[in-house]
Amino acid sequence: MRQRNKPWADVFLQNNSHIVIQNPRDNKGKWKNLFNNDNPIHVEIGTGKGQFITGMAKQFPDVNFVGIELAKSIIVSAAQKVITHEQDNILLINENASDLLEIFTDNEISVIYLNFSDPWPKNRHEKRRLTYHIFLELYRRVLKSSGELIMKTDNRGLFEYSLVSFSNFGMKLDEVNLNLHQAEDPTNVMTEYEQKFSEKGQVIYRCRTRFNKN
Amino acid sequence: MRQRNKPWADVFLQNNSHIVIQNPRDNKGKWKNLFNNDNPIHVEIGTGKGQFITGMAKQFPDVNFVGIELAKSIIVSAAQKVITHEQDNILLINENASDLLEIFTDNEISVIYLNFSDPWPKNRHEKRRLTYHIFLELYRRVLKSSGELIMKTDNRGLFEYSLVSFSNFGMKLDEVNLNLHQAEDPTNVMTEYEQKFSEKGQVIYRCRTRFNKN
Ligand SMILES: C[S@@+](CC[C@H](N)C(=O)[O-])C[C@H]1O[C@@H](n2cnc3c(N)ncnc32)[C@H](O)[C@@H]1O
Ligand SMILES: C[S@@+](CC[C@H](N)C(=O)[O-])C[C@H]1O[C@@H](n2cnc3c(N)ncnc32)[C@H](O)[C@@H]1O
Repeated sequence: MRQRNKPWADVFLQNNSHIVIQNPRDNKGKWKNLFNNDNPIHVEIGTGKGQFITGMAKQFPDVNFVGIELAKSIIVSAAQKVITHEQDNILLINENASDLLEIFTDNEISVIYLNFSDPWPKNRHEKRRLTYHIFLELYRRVLKSSGELIMKTDNRGLFEYSLVSFSNFGMKLDEVNLNLHQAEDPTNVMTEYEQKFSEKGQVIYRCRTRFNKN
Repeated sequence: MRQRNKPWADVFLQNNSHIVIQNPRDNKGKWKNLFNNDNPIHVEIGTGKGQFITGMAKQFPDVNFVGIELAKSIIVSAAQKVITHEQDNILLINENASDLLEIFTDNEISVIYLNFSDPWPKNRHEKRRLTYHIFLELYRRVLKSSGELIMKTDNRGLFEYSLVSFSNFGMKLDEVNLNLHQAEDPTNVMTEYEQKFSEKGQVIYRCRTRFNKN
């Protein structure tokens, strides 16, 4: 996901700083002020081009969504989608999930979504997987005790790894779905990857899991 | 799995009481005496016709295997297989898994296998599933603290349910495999159902899980 420097992207992001927040660290513990209400905050990590977050924001107008996306040229696409959908319950940030604790304070978030995260299949890249225990500790901190981590992926290896990683971290599974698209579910909002892979007939996995915060 | 009374089955089982133990409750806490050694004891619940347990007993001569099978006419087939294979590290018992605590004492068992257990898909039959929490409590009691419960199934609903049930029970996942037959594994011993379903191209799931016995 590395890319060449794209000056037009910087200009676009500066011009749309009401959607792609420029100094997200300044809002740590104060995100509700930006949304101007007390609604629960859901965070998607690796938002991609924004199909999921815009669909969710439409379906749940009483939830505030924050999308974190590392790649500048990709977050531009997500921002364009937010503008088109005219939704005021979405903010985006161009950051790395590893900096989560600098952006959110403890217990600030109600739900975290991991959608089709990069699988990093090689053992020596385990630390980069977004369900590696170092990342889980970040999620645990910023999530409320009633909060959930919801994961979708088509990648069997990543899903198997993640279930074991969650278990070792003392997390509890609320739901496991090993073929999300077997049954029609009109409430499921698809991501770009989900649409692409499910159209190819690939199985999509989902789980919902909770941290032990006592 | 209900069946008509088969008097020949009774005769057969009486004649082979060195394999199909007639009063298993008398051996509670003393199974190693029957095997005449101190080797670890592995128990398969719902042994069926015995393909898995005979294959495992051959692969692991230093493990003692006990197969529990509820259906009399089916355990006859398993016993015939044990006789054919001339293995002295297998015993069978014609019992219901719900009576496990009458048959084994605490910490007597090293591994429990659940292979293609009846799925009982209806919600109102949840209590009959062999991964319902009441059964898990029996397994926890008879397993050593280092012991494992290993499950294989083709049934997606049962597997999804079981992962959540294990998690709610505070168990830890050591391994999850969401397509056991994707890669060739010469050490995997197939059950009758596994062979049948995997030949049809059906996905086979497996997990290994541990109880928290502290
Ligand atoms: C495989 S894509 C999936 C995109 C989208 N979620 C979907 O399902 O269609 C993974 C996305 O996560 C982003 N990403 C990867 N690692 C990240 C990190 N540490 N922090 C934030 N975003 C990350 C990538 O830039 C990429 O856009
Ligand atoms: C679907 S078959 C699978 C047989 C074999 N394990 C295989 O994989 O081919 C389930 C078996 O479990 C047995 N069974 C079901 N409930 C049981 C219980 N509570 N205790 C012992 N055996 C049981 C049934 O009689 C049946 O033989």
